[in-house]
Amino acid sequence: MSSSTPNKVPSSPPASPFKLALCQTPVTLDKEENIAVARDYLMRAAAAGASLAVLPECFNCPYDTACFREYAEELPAVGFKPTEDHSSPSLKMLRQTAQETKMFIVGGSVPEIANDGNIYNSSLSVSPDGTVVAKHRKAHLFDIDVPGGIRFKESDVLSPGGSATAFFAPEIDCTVGVGICYDVRFPELAMLQARELGAKVLVFPGAFNMTTGPAHWELLLRGRALDNQVFVAACSPSRSEGGDGYTAWGHSMVVDPWGTVLASADEKPALVVTTIDLGRLDTVRKSIPTSQQRREDIYRLQSVP
Amino acid sequence: MSSSTPNKVPSSPPASPFKLALCQTPVTLDKEENIAVARDYLMRAAAAGASLAVLPECFNCPYDTACFREYAEELPAVGFKPTEDHSSPSLKMLRQTAQETKMFIVGGSVPEIANDGNIYNSSLSVSPDGTVVAKHRKAHLFDIDVPGGIRFKESDVLSPGGSATAFFAPEIDCTVGVGICYDVRFPELAMLQARELGAKVLVFPGAFNMTTGPAHWELLLRGRALDNQVFVAACSPSRSEGGDGYTAWGHSMVVDPWGTVLASADEKPALVVTTIDLGRLDTVRKSIPTSQQRREDIYRLQSVP
Repeated sequence: MSSSTPNKVPSSPPASPFKLALCQTPVTLDKEENIAVARDYLMRAAAAGASLAVLPECFNCPYDTACFREYAEELPAVGFKPTEDHSSPSLKMLRQTAQETKMFIVGGSVPEIANDGNIYNSSLSVSPDGTVVAKHRKAHLFDIDVPGGIRFKESDVLSPGGSATAFFAPEIDCTVGVGICYDVRFPELAMLQARELGAKVLVFPGAFNMTTGPAHWELLLRGRALDNQVFVAACSPSRSEGGDGYTAWGHSMVVDPWGTVLASADEKPALVVTTIDLGRLDTVRKSIPTSQQRREDIYRLQSVP
Repeated sequence: MSSSTPNKVPSSPPASPFKLALCQTPVTLDKEENIAVARDYLMRAAAAGASLAVLPECFNCPYDTACFREYAEELPAVGFKPTEDHSSPSLKMLRQTAQETKMFIVGGSVPEIANDGNIYNSSLSVSPDGTVVAKHRKAHLFDIDVPGGIRFKESDVLSPGGSATAFFAPEIDCTVGVGICYDVRFPELAMLQARELGAKVLVFPGAFNMTTGPAHWELLLRGRALDNQVFVAACSPSRSEGGDGYTAWGHSMVVDPWGTVLASADEKPALVVTTIDLGRLDTVRKSIPTSQQRREDIYRLQSVP
């Protein structure tokens, strides 16, 4: 697994609670405005005391295969230093804002154009000093066709990533996993993030729709949280009224390791701020110790090298 | 995996819908009465047109570690023929009822005493001709300790089984997976049942309690159904008023492959009958083709031989 391996260190005493913010921003056809709005929400998140802030999937671009190439930016690899220049306006905003606010930012996702011309749906995470600490390329492309519901085929335009992703955030003593939207439907990815990478908070920038949103969004998020006894935080764009062909469900949401919804938005633009107490995770894992009770003599899940 | 391998055969045309019944029976200290009540519910299920009927976990015995050895019976292995005599009164009822009604019966579970003196929480499934077509020993023992909630330790008395279980029911053209209660918390087991054994309906006899029931019962059942795009049918005993130390949540429930609850009970004794249309499973799998979209170059789940 060519992942962004977290440099996890043992911690004692237990981590202090921290604030997490989900920025459910409106996304329009105007890329510059989208980036400016995202920055505005991030600044409000910082003002609310957040240490970790999350943007939506495709925060700078309408969620539309016809837009991805036009809006795409070149993006650097994980480890990219704040001292290096880069052409990406989205990265520039992310690292400037992270440095100013001293937050970790999971930069939702943006269309990325690679050297070989492939387009990815990619998420950059940036540390308070402006370093790119994680880069996740959506690994499971959103190709579905629900009769009478929704048809969408990301693979018409996008290429998939090839790894599970997480980063360690020392300031909050927490490993944060990153997946994008449709990735959440694949239990193995979250299981690897939690078990092999040590993620305690799984972040999913995601734009579900008016068919799968009401049916599956909350169920999937609560299921991943309970099955892995982790926090799950999913950040959607707000619902577009523009009739651009894809209507986001919204309902950005944070779930605790017991499967309880801690905070959520409706469909309108919103800033969701909630406190993450990793002590709750320890309590749940001690109460129902499933991670000690797996039967690896019957089944085994492994990452593929 | 030393499982009850289903002898699955390709089918065409598509399977006809069939009726499934969950018998949410009351369970008392009186074993003979428990067996008689179970038979009564099964006969009512047959009268309602069921082809597949399910009893609760520990349908003949209070769910109490202090009772398991006293109530335990010797049980035969999978493949046991209807022409052979057996001492188990629970099996006797199951096969007589299956033969009379021409139903497949998933016989909930009963405490089993093995030749070596070990006690298991075991489920026998019986075909319409009275053959034992599956035997599942609970593979994940219920050892939990939720502060202010519930403490229970099955492993004080029980030994765990060592396999995933399913059987093929030709009359309804369906492979049926069987797990017991706490088994449902382990995603891998359901994933193996669906993928390797071909189960399209996962049956879980189970007795959740007043702490984990309201918090997790429906979430786990809907999650297993959606993640694996299978039907899930879970059968609980009704809520005991006897103050025997363990209060069952009830709420026997059937969920479809879209994650929708098709039918459910409250806490009182109930017979839940619903129609299972396997065509719905095909439609869901075609609409959101996750089983074709897994990234086995990133992760791999396998049974352990």
